[in-house]
Amino acid sequence: MKNTYRIIFDCPDRRGIVAKTATMLSDNGGWILDAAHHSDHDHQWFFSRLEVKADSLPFDLSVLREKFQPLVDEFEMNLRLVDGDQPKRVVILASKSSHCLADLLDRWHSNDIDCDICAVISNHCANKALVEGYDIPYHEVMIDKDDKAPGFAELERLIDRYDAETIVLARYMQILPPAMCHKYQHQVINIHHSFLPSFVGAGPYRQAWQRGVKLVGATSHYVTEHLDQGPIIAQDTIHVSHAHTARDLVRLGKDVEKTVLARGLTAHLEDRVMVHGNRTIVFD
Amino acid sequence: MKNTYRIIFDCPDRRGIVAKTATMLSDNGGWILDAAHHSDHDHQWFFSRLEVKADSLPFDLSVLREKFQPLVDEFEMNLRLVDGDQPKRVVILASKSSHCLADLLDRWHSNDIDCDICAVISNHCANKALVEGYDIPYHEVMIDKDDKAPGFAELERLIDRYDAETIVLARYMQILPPAMCHKYQHQVINIHHSFLPSFVGAGPYRQAWQRGVKLVGATSHYVTEHLDQGPIIAQDTIHVSHAHTARDLVRLGKDVEKTVLARGLTAHLEDRVMVHGNRTIVFD
Amino acid sequence: MKNTYRIIFDCPDRRGIVAKTATMLSDNGGWILDAAHHSDHDHQWFFSRLEVKADSLPFDLSVLREKFQPLVDEFEMNLRLVDGDQPKRVVILASKSSHCLADLLDRWHSNDIDCDICAVISNHCANKALVEGYDIPYHEVMIDKDDKAPGFAELERLIDRYDAETIVLARYMQILPPAMCHKYQHQVINIHHSFLPSFVGAGPYRQAWQRGVKLVGATSHYVTEHLDQGPIIAQDTIHVSHAHTARDLVRLGKDVEKTVLARGLTAHLEDRVMVHGNRTIVFD
Amino acid sequence: MKNTYRIIFDCPDRRGIVAKTATMLSDNGGWILDAAHHSDHDHQWFFSRLEVKADSLPFDLSVLREKFQPLVDEFEMNLRLVDGDQPKRVVILASKSSHCLADLLDRWHSNDIDCDICAVISNHCANKALVEGYDIPYHEVMIDKDDKAPGFAELERLIDRYDAETIVLARYMQILPPAMCHKYQHQVINIHHSFLPSFVGAGPYRQAWQRGVKLVGATSHYVTEHLDQGPIIAQDTIHVSHAHTARDLVRLGKDVEKTVLARGLTAHLEDRVMVHGNRTIVFD
Repeated sequence: MKNTYRIIFDCPDRRGIVAKTATMLSDNGGWILDAAHHSDHDHQWFFSRLEVKADSLPFDLSVLREKFQPLVDEFEMNLRLVDGDQPKRVVILASKSSHCLADLLDRWHSNDIDCDICAVISNHCANKALVEGYDIPYHEVMIDKDDKAPGFAELERLIDRYDAETIVLARYMQILPPAMCHKYQHQVINIHHSFLPSFVGAGPYRQAWQRGVKLVGATSHYVTEHLDQGPIIAQDTIHVSHAHTARDLVRLGKDVEKTVLARGLTAHLEDRVMVHGNRTIVFD
Repeated sequence: MKNTYRIIFDCPDRRGIVAKTATMLSDNGGWILDAAHHSDHDHQWFFSRLEVKADSLPFDLSVLREKFQPLVDEFEMNLRLVDGDQPKRVVILASKSSHCLADLLDRWHSNDIDCDICAVISNHCANKALVEGYDIPYHEVMIDKDDKAPGFAELERLIDRYDAETIVLARYMQILPPAMCHKYQHQVINIHHSFLPSFVGAGPYRQAWQRGVKLVGATSHYVTEHLDQGPIIAQDTIHVSHAHTARDLVRLGKDVEKTVLARGLTAHLEDRVMVHGNRTIVFD
Repeated sequence: MKNTYRIIFDCPDRRGIVAKTATMLSDNGGWILDAAHHSDHDHQWFFSRLEVKADSLPFDLSVLREKFQPLVDEFEMNLRLVDGDQPKRVVILASKSSHCLADLLDRWHSNDIDCDICAVISNHCANKALVEGYDIPYHEVMIDKDDKAPGFAELERLIDRYDAETIVLARYMQILPPAMCHKYQHQVINIHHSFLPSFVGAGPYRQAWQRGVKLVGATSHYVTEHLDQGPIIAQDTIHVSHAHTARDLVRLGKDVEKTVLARGLTAHLEDRVMVHGNRTIVFD
Repeated sequence: MKNTYRIIFDCPDRRGIVAKTATMLSDNGGWILDAAHHSDHDHQWFFSRLEVKADSLPFDLSVLREKFQPLVDEFEMNLRLVDGDQPKRVVILASKSSHCLADLLDRWHSNDIDCDICAVISNHCANKALVEGYDIPYHEVMIDKDDKAPGFAELERLIDRYDAETIVLARYMQILPPAMCHKYQHQVINIHHSFLPSFVGAGPYRQAWQRGVKLVGATSHYVTEHLDQGPIIAQDTIHVSHAHTARDLVRLGKDVEKTVLARGLTAHLEDRVMVHGNRTIVFD
């Protein structure tokens, strides 16, 4: 929704959080358009996401932050305030496969995901024409398999130059170094082509075929330094049969990959994802 | 959850509803365990469902209702207060098919749905042993096809004698008369064996087979006087193929019917369903 | 699979069809790589699709047809023989929406569907750059709403000029005239943005939202002169909730539309679809 | 289907298998009602399942077997011949949970699965009344955790006394000893409450919750001596969210367990499952 401020916070669960937050907003004229809460009773932790009509408040986000400060202190909130009218800046990393990339570009072009795609960076020469057809800058940054550091340094430099808030690994066939995983914590979204935690690592469809599974899946997750272990945002599966070869699974799985990556990215861009430990809260 | 009060209300959407409600609860010591809201921006209408820790409040439901009265007046709320420790009283109506009935009885027996199944009433002699095996009263009430009124009068008498709040049509093969639909508005849940609005009326699997659909589905909905037109609570579908006969569809569809009826009933029993016009809000 | 001949036939069901067919092939050295049969016991009709290793036979398709003639006569077969190495010629018709079009183009580019996309014809100025980025001819053929005949005549001329065997309506917002439906019988595949037979005609997502369904779907089908009534090839659905607006349904439904159109088209291109009356047999 | 013989075989893939098999049947008057084939091109192996109208043949199964012998020799077939009118004898093993058991009993009672349920054996006192309500013998066989051998010996004795061809582990909470796994190879079907190979072993829902997955699943598979590693017959998943506790996953997962167990068992009972290495071919 346009003309909204997004208020996202989590804190230890206690009495009065909703009351005081809503009252502060209401006292300042704030109109809550959407509100979602979650109480994790195991961990006694509270999560909340509110959308407030921006022009119902007589001040901007920086003043809103000041108004929130007493609540942040009282309830020990982790608070994030986001202007819903400011699309996030996104850099997409890709390799040779085009299906996720083409899918994201069309969604962006069709205004079905709300973000600025600043650039696509690839370690492969393919897909240049596709990207530039959308008037998006395309960079080829090779990662030398015997000396990866220079390539990743260049990658990082570009990401920072574009001031990207979100980095999408759209079937990017490189493992980011731990330092980058830390630097961009909860900002890097990967699509893994299996239903994690099944089939971690390389060749998941081949693994799936060998195990004789009757479903294949895909998982979008935040990247951490532990390969394919990061917090899961979205997952889905489709039915397959004995009649499908490992190569068929690759082809069929693409549909799930595209959808699951887009679903995870959309939730992230709309600030609907909160991370707690290695689990996510994803407000619909 | 046990030891909770459920607070369900809807009203025209305005500023301050959440703030005043939450503050009233908080001022009385109320601990909100779960909160879900929905704003229908098309109709400018607000829907809310709260669960409050019952013993966090120093009074009972009748006093809570009094405390709510000023808010009800100010915001023109339709308010429902429910003691979460009081399972709803349910009567199941069945015919010859046993799959939905057996499924519900096992869920109840396994404590997977929270209700009191007071009785099963059937217009068919089957399933008596099954029902009585669970120590649940079983009544056979025949509906004479040439004179239905006496049968339905008896049915109504039984429902009222059991003081049932919820009536489940578990593949009950009779159409309730309009007067009963009105009397038990939003209390009667039916399972229709198609993905409504496709294939209204009799023989939906035969209709589906003839149309050559590649999915069959089921729909649980509140019963109104308009056949298969009532507010939808839950739906699902499964894939079928040309290899399936109409008879196969009947068999395969049963899995969806069972699941969708149970899902709809569970939402209803937990007071997660709100009806607005002919649409439902179903809080997860 | 490459280097195959596809043998597709249907006929009244009788004893000996498989035996005589397989024996004729075997006697000529034919190696059957894939075989699928279906007996419709209601209509006593038999359907079969075989893939034979092309170079296992000592002759070409025209001789194979001669060899088949006695069987065609004896069993009253409708027989189709297809060289699996000859990709079908496809023309895509599109309007403003790009999601199905972009999806098909990427599948084609990624070799995930086997066909020659000869041209894209649109009644809208959008998507020209996208199409031409793939080096595919793009034609804009406007259909004047007050005089549609000239536009459709031009459309037909182009289709014939490209010698297209398959016409894909990738969210093409025009209803083909009956004469074209007849001329290209079982060659035109449409994607309808609902789970047919629900919500025939215009604005299905709006209709779905008003009915309050909990699933939306899509249907790919052969076009006939009866709007949205043609034989169904593929269908799927996804879950939606009260929280989704009619506009959300449009966005969410696109994922199903893309997948279901591609699935239907793939089956068609691989000659896996047989039409019988208004139903399809779709061999996996 | 009734009045059928099922012919199931696999062999190295070669020319002429279908031709010679179908011709032998046809020469004897055999009417093929259903035929499914699969060629595994990786392993050059051929799989086939035929249903023949029993009374179209002028002899019984033992003569049919003799007629097949030359083909068995020539093509090195593993051949199984089954009289479709002879339902398989099934023993169900259960523990405390009733959901899979109650579900199977109702399917059997409703004639939706075709078998003779000879007995239910449990290592727990629950579910006796349920089972006996269906007039099925119920045996309680405790497995002493410090000395399991006597319990399993008794179990084996009962299975053999009932001459069971199929053993269903309907959430049976014991691991069969390797000797029993060997003795009843491809006869024991288990339902594992996760989407294998994820979450092998105990407490899969707890593991799933901790990993923060967005789907939970179930797997029916043949039991081997390697825990949860046997050939997979059927799988499915459902969506879950952060709002669900580990206990919710247990409850929600039951629907998938029931369906997936029934689907796997049905395929097995209809002789639609062929095992090759650790993979299954499951003909629809």
